Amino acid sequence: MCKQIGHRISGSPQAARAVEWGKETLEKAGCDKVYLQEVMVPHWVRGEEQCHILDAKGNRYPLKLLSIGNSVGTGHTGIEAPVVLINNMDELERMNPSDIHGKIVFFNNYFDQTNINTFESYGPCVYYRWAAPSKAAKLGAIAVVIRSVSSAFDDAPHTGSLSYDKKSPAIPAIALSNLGADQLLHKLQTEKGVKMYIRNTCQMLPDVKSYNVVGEITGSEIPNEIITIGGHLDSWDIGEGAHDDGAGVVQSIEVLRTFKKLGIRPKRTIRAVLFMNEENGLRGGTKYAELAVANKENHLVAIESDAGGATPIGFSMTMSNTQRNKIKSWQHLLIPYGIYNLDGNGGGADLSPLHKKMGTPVMELYPDSQRYFDMHHSENDVFEKVHRRELCLGAIAMSAMVYLLSTYGL
Amino acid sequence: MCKQIGHRISGSPQAARAVEWGKETLEKAGCDKVYLQEVMVPHWVRGEEQCHILDAKGNRYPLKLLSIGNSVGTGHTGIEAPVVLINNMDELERMNPSDIHGKIVFFNNYFDQTNINTFESYGPCVYYRWAAPSKAAKLGAIAVVIRSVSSAFDDAPHTGSLSYDKKSPAIPAIALSNLGADQLLHKLQTEKGVKMYIRNTCQMLPDVKSYNVVGEITGSEIPNEIITIGGHLDSWDIGEGAHDDGAGVVQSIEVLRTFKKLGIRPKRTIRAVLFMNEENGLRGGTKYAELAVANKENHLVAIESDAGGATPIGFSMTMSNTQRNKIKSWQHLLIPYGIYNLDGNGGGADLSPLHKKMGTPVMELYPDSQRYFDMHHSENDVFEKVHRRELCLGAIAMSAMVYLLSTYGL
Repeated sequence: MCKQIGHRISGSPQAARAVEWGKETLEKAGCDKVYLQEVMVPHWVRGEEQCHILDAKGNRYPLKLLSIGNSVGTGHTGIEAPVVLINNMDELERMNPSDIHGKIVFFNNYFDQTNINTFESYGPCVYYRWAAPSKAAKLGAIAVVIRSVSSAFDDAPHTGSLSYDKKSPAIPAIALSNLGADQLLHKLQTEKGVKMYIRNTCQMLPDVKSYNVVGEITGSEIPNEIITIGGHLDSWDIGEGAHDDGAGVVQSIEVLRTFKKLGIRPKRTIRAVLFMNEENGLRGGTKYAELAVANKENHLVAIESDAGGATPIGFSMTMSNTQRNKIKSWQHLLIPYGIYNLDGNGGGADLSPLHKKMGTPVMELYPDSQRYFDMHHSENDVFEKVHRRELCLGAIAMSAMVYLLSTYGL
Repeated sequence: MCKQIGHRISGSPQAARAVEWGKETLEKAGCDKVYLQEVMVPHWVRGEEQCHILDAKGNRYPLKLLSIGNSVGTGHTGIEAPVVLINNMDELERMNPSDIHGKIVFFNNYFDQTNINTFESYGPCVYYRWAAPSKAAKLGAIAVVIRSVSSAFDDAPHTGSLSYDKKSPAIPAIALSNLGADQLLHKLQTEKGVKMYIRNTCQMLPDVKSYNVVGEITGSEIPNEIITIGGHLDSWDIGEGAHDDGAGVVQSIEVLRTFKKLGIRPKRTIRAVLFMNEENGLRGGTKYAELAVANKENHLVAIESDAGGATPIGFSMTMSNTQRNKIKSWQHLLIPYGIYNLDGNGGGADLSPLHKKMGTPVMELYPDSQRYFDMHHSENDVFEKVHRRELCLGAIAMSAMVYLLSTYGL
């Protein structure tokens, strides 16, 4: 999937090929049933993109950039404007609109390196990617530049989704790498009259028909109780979507293959779902929940793997204390495999509609998070960065958890 | 140390530079005392090395190799002989000496990939590097080839130490990469009359004067009780000795720097030791223990970091149950930092003489082990393979443990 198909943003020909690949791979894994769930997905395309710093003397300093996903473009001529440095949202809110109007706002927000669990740094930081463009547009900004949501000190920008607030104009938004952002920051701190030129031609095209891919092993004793496991097939349109979320996709398939290979017939039905459009719309996850409701399905629990393919250290979960305690009673069986952390909250984006609509208890595989945000949504998220043993350990942890849930319920 | 000095085998000019670097770095860290402990170390040099498979038709297939550390060489003309495939030691012991005499023995022993903790695979596998050459020599073999002690499926051979049994002739021993070993295996399984040519000029030169480098923060209340922390300065003569054991060296220094930087005066004396010659002689660790005995020092506990710079997950230890239980009573303080495993046994090679001679309780930082033996003792053990956050977490875990031990004793 990483090397022969490559990156596979929703609506792209590669995403369509990934659907075919997923179907074939689930069939080869020996599933009792493999089928598709049709879903219309957004089709954002990146187009061309370039930017540079322009100092008061007219010198140009080109920077690597990635347009933020779902962003509008600048048009073919691009835009050139003075840059206003904003360190955080409080600072923006104290600004006079006349200081922002017609300018490019640079959100210089840093990924917090002090959390042991880097996912705790991701949330607060991603706000500047997701929501900040509209906040700046409200004050009259004509474009937004962010410091990438990244733990790496390198020259790779990281993309991701934004969402426009409908009350403000949709303005172009781009991400610089940490080193690129440092360069811009240095200019802004040491010189007057610093401008930027940005030109990108990204745009949202009409929705495209696509699919979730589903494979099942039918339960031997309680087939109507479903345990969903899953990851997402789509990726960003750079790199290879190896950790995000090739890892979760192959681990989900591997759980089914493991049961088949070992000849273990689960009591309950195990369903692997390869979701479409997690990255910039969540249409696949939403459709999955809608169909579950429409079909009056009985979902025992659902487990997502969408946090990278590193060594697993636990599962986060959103469920009742009674349910969590039941899972924690199995802790001694999991610790020899390095699964010690069953205390976190979470469940994964693709399962959130199922949890919301049906109240299904949800879980997510929790891998060691030290390296994930170095690569996430960047050109560095490639197959070579996934370690075979670590990836396998994740599949083993999921298989063990699914076996326990299938055998003993929740 | 990795990039400006590079690899630094005992007795080499680089090892001498590493001693200077260590001394300066400990001084800069703000130690109360920095000093050297003189020790004579072996000086093995690799020289030139080449080998190829030679089939019955006279075709040559060159293979990458690394002579095993401490090995004798073949001499300048090299040796050419038929190859005998031996899968394990039992198989060797069942062989008729006439089938081995004058031949090259290929030990095709695999690194066991089924252990979660790869250190459990290292021990049994390393026997084929450490002891097998003399076992084969006893039966008349003229050289030994091993499959590298490596978890990676790649073309990088891994070196390491051997020890000759004095009752058998010392014969040359080399390691092939896993892919190289596969190629040789395939030839041996599919063709008759397969030979190898090996030429290496490695040799053991006279001992060289070198040093352990020691830095101390003097305890404020019980200065005569010493907590030793350490890693080893020397490395193999390939790669950069980044994980093995640049990581342990800089983590040990970082513990002292952290105390100084935070203005925490420890109750007991904390001593960082950068050991010399862990890799092929253990002379530094032995000298350290001898001096501790001679000086009638009082050692509370000693902690080594020599298992790579990956995310720490625990400490292994060799001490009484009462002592282990005291450390385990701090577990709730360590779990938020991912330190959950305090059950393993161990203590590190450089501390083993101290434990043996003085009965000092010993511990070793236990990092996630999934990637370590991919790089260990190979050209791939370079700075770029160490992750800053993971390395820092190891230093943090050691600092926390040292603080608890210094404050509450053992």
